[in-house]
Amino acid sequence: MADLNEIIHQPVRLRIMAALVTVEDETQLDFTYLRNLLDVTDGNLGAHLRKLEEAGYVELSKTFVARKPRTYASATTRGRRAFEDHVAALEAIMRGEESDGRKND
Amino acid sequence: MADLNEIIHQPVRLRIMAALVTVEDETQLDFTYLRNLLDVTDGNLGAHLRKLEEAGYVELSKTFVARKPRTYASATTRGRRAFEDHVAALEAIMRGEESDGRKND
Repeated sequence: MADLNEIIHQPVRLRIMAALVTVEDETQLDFTYLRNLLDVTDGNLGAHLRKLEEAGYVELSKTFVARKPRTYASATTRGRRAFEDHVAALEAIMRGEESDGRKND
Repeated sequence: MADLNEIIHQPVRLRIMAALVTVEDETQLDFTYLRNLLDVTDGNLGAHLRKLEEAGYVELSKTFVARKPRTYASATTRGRRAFEDHVAALEAIMRGEESDGRKND
């Protein structure tokens, strides 16, 4: 059975990973940009980013711009690979490959 | 932002809908077949099927075979449409279309 990644499948995290993975390698996205893109609260986005960071999928870095802290996120190599695997699993499910496979059991 | 359907996004329900939608129109799948395909317990499958039935996405019918009750599930027209919309939303997210769109805001 195609393996869905539970960490990535959650809708907000799926969107975060998609946003980070579809930019060029090592591009960092700004916390505020992501928050507006996904239309979530600061707290919500922060919690999901931490979960992705704990899984090693996302790297967070903090910097100061005009004395204000800014957080940037980027996908790690491991995160990109996990996202690709998840997308492949989703595509297999959506094409109904699970049920085809079952018939040959 | 692409709209994910929360009822369908849940992994077991996503797999149920994929299995039901990728068979021919009005084909019914047997409860036991689905349970084995998805590798879930009776209780788990039953709960998710009821949730899909409540949403109008799945039709359940009970019949007796050799005096034993058998449950069959099929996707409704509404369920097929909801699944297709969900797949389209997932594909848009996975292609990173959300972030592209954002740049034009």
